[in-house]
Amino acid sequence: MNELPTASTAATSRRERVQVAIIGAGPAGLLLGALLHQAGIEALVLEQRSADYVLGRIRAGVLEQGTVALMDRLGLGARMHAQGLVHGGFALGWRNRHQRIDLEALAGKAVMVYGQTEVTRDLMDARAASGARTVYEAADVALHDLGGTAPWVSYRRDGVEHRVDCDFIAGCDGYHGVSRASIPADALRCYERVYPFGWLGVLCDTPPVSHELIYSNHARGFALCSMRSPTRSRYYLQCALDDKVEAWSDAAFFDELRRRIEPEAAEALVTGPSIEKSIAPLRSFVAEPMRHGRLFLAGDAAHIVPPTGAKGLNLAASDVTYLGDALVEHYRERSDAGLDAYSERALKRVWKAVRFSWWFTSLMHRFPDDSGFGQKIQEAELDYLLGSRAASAALAENYVGLPL
Amino acid sequence: MNELPTASTAATSRRERVQVAIIGAGPAGLLLGALLHQAGIEALVLEQRSADYVLGRIRAGVLEQGTVALMDRLGLGARMHAQGLVHGGFALGWRNRHQRIDLEALAGKAVMVYGQTEVTRDLMDARAASGARTVYEAADVALHDLGGTAPWVSYRRDGVEHRVDCDFIAGCDGYHGVSRASIPADALRCYERVYPFGWLGVLCDTPPVSHELIYSNHARGFALCSMRSPTRSRYYLQCALDDKVEAWSDAAFFDELRRRIEPEAAEALVTGPSIEKSIAPLRSFVAEPMRHGRLFLAGDAAHIVPPTGAKGLNLAASDVTYLGDALVEHYRERSDAGLDAYSERALKRVWKAVRFSWWFTSLMHRFPDDSGFGQKIQEAELDYLLGSRAASAALAENYVGLPL
Repeated sequence: MNELPTASTAATSRRERVQVAIIGAGPAGLLLGALLHQAGIEALVLEQRSADYVLGRIRAGVLEQGTVALMDRLGLGARMHAQGLVHGGFALGWRNRHQRIDLEALAGKAVMVYGQTEVTRDLMDARAASGARTVYEAADVALHDLGGTAPWVSYRRDGVEHRVDCDFIAGCDGYHGVSRASIPADALRCYERVYPFGWLGVLCDTPPVSHELIYSNHARGFALCSMRSPTRSRYYLQCALDDKVEAWSDAAFFDELRRRIEPEAAEALVTGPSIEKSIAPLRSFVAEPMRHGRLFLAGDAAHIVPPTGAKGLNLAASDVTYLGDALVEHYRERSDAGLDAYSERALKRVWKAVRFSWWFTSLMHRFPDDSGFGQKIQEAELDYLLGSRAASAALAENYVGLPL
Repeated sequence: MNELPTASTAATSRRERVQVAIIGAGPAGLLLGALLHQAGIEALVLEQRSADYVLGRIRAGVLEQGTVALMDRLGLGARMHAQGLVHGGFALGWRNRHQRIDLEALAGKAVMVYGQTEVTRDLMDARAASGARTVYEAADVALHDLGGTAPWVSYRRDGVEHRVDCDFIAGCDGYHGVSRASIPADALRCYERVYPFGWLGVLCDTPPVSHELIYSNHARGFALCSMRSPTRSRYYLQCALDDKVEAWSDAAFFDELRRRIEPEAAEALVTGPSIEKSIAPLRSFVAEPMRHGRLFLAGDAAHIVPPTGAKGLNLAASDVTYLGDALVEHYRERSDAGLDAYSERALKRVWKAVRFSWWFTSLMHRFPDDSGFGQKIQEAELDYLLGSRAASAALAENYVGLPL
């Protein structure tokens, strides 16, 4: 089995060995790469896309304190602290009134608004500067011999077939990646919930309508006023699953957004031409376990959450913290305890965030298929939540991130 | 319209006038009767069953502090305080371990274990002693002219047709009663959730397995260890909707109960012959509004909750507190503000309790139709709840009862 896939001449095939092969150069893969590099463990990151493509993906931008701490631990927090926005609360809108959820008072922590794109850029720059290797545009990545002690990865680039022998493979290549797909179906159990709506998102270079995020439950559907910086806004509207981006002019988008937030905020809204506009479906998904032999899944490769509450990137960061520490333990202390505990440990935190994201999504959206009872339960819960310090504190402690 | 239904001779028909006609002599009707009597408002309670039948109904037995306070306010708390059991917490069982929810520490309040039967008996005795009238075995109760200013009630007893003219009618006759059924269907909106399981309950004269209640989430289904007194236990098992009482011997019941609670508790369980055994379906139901003209609904006539968390009787008590105060305001201050606000005010609290009962039911039972995701969410929520003071405090404050 340990032969080169198409070994013929030195010019068309290459073979190398690293300790850990990381599949995917998104935040999960790059964070893990940085953790391993810091510990002196040699890792190669393989990414099927280009660096520019990875950087161009518009994703979440709210970092839990644990994620901020991980960037600091890696020595990569400087730009984040300089440019990121510390948010001590957010507004929860209901019945055209916004009520502030004071995260610092309720949970003793704040969150950091700093786009995933910026996190990725910081990690890419540091990785390049450190000399650690990332192969972009690696085609036909395939994983081999996961069940044995000598797994390997094959890929093709510029006509050359590559083979990477390694001790471990970290699958950080997202929901559609090859890593999870390489695990036999009967070795995984998958859990899924699909929501009957999507998010229509707009990015534009205007000052945000508020200095903190606004999550609004409205009879016309959910709306979120978010931001990337003091001059770049990110707005979302709940939309139908069959809605088309082309059907939404910028003017129509902002008209609808104004309807779904409290009048004072609607009046303060500064609009401008969208620089990105897209519709994303919402899904909860978890694959268990997060390990198959020598392959360890982390981040979106193992689980997806709806964006409500911004847990996706933060879960990738906690997965990778557990996995990085376990790999360091393996190499430094010759103990596999951390690796053996990885899946269970990560899933324990993952499921709590999946629960929170599902709950917050259920609380804030209109469900077109609801018979009426669910809608009344949602209203009762908002009424209770906004009047209860205990319930608000539970929301806040989940929002800022449960402990690792 | 204001004619006697079958007015012929004095011997076969009678007519009288009261200020308030109360339909139903369960706790809601009797509590309202006591409140009105205390305020000098003349009310007649009509009950289609016998007093013994009403007393024989085995129902919940956990009183919130607001319900305890209402009994005290009526001067009827003596036996409750002497015989009732003050519970400062309960055990929440999961994965064969019981963890105490410390209600006093988390919510600053306790609950009172005192059976609905005892509450009813105290109210009946006090009503009889006060000279206030209750008509039992009133047949063919019918409500008339609800939309006008002169509503009336007709019923038949011992061959005599009765007509009761009144200012207001209080519909306290439960889910199956005539009151809600007298409201035109297009004037009500009903919300319902039916659960895919029932509760098999056993009452027996044995000391309770624990001095506090045990709510147990188990892979085989929910179990509840409750009590009525230090010598009378009440146990429940989640069962299939098509289960039959006859299929459950006492031995089979207790064997199953032992499997669903932690081993130490199972070992301590003292069993004895059941003195009552029954299966009840679980349902959430709310009818809106709780007023139609001169008819005001209170308690089960307007809403049903699953027994998890014991909110049914306590909601009846809070409804009746609002309604009693509003009627007193009408007669003393000639203001209808309280009556006009009644439905909205009561429903605000009702829906929060409906939400809590639905949530606690969803958290603690096995759902046979669940695809897997819901079960994992339930486990994540229990894992989170049992480790979070904020979430435990939210559970506790709902359990002891939200403020009126």
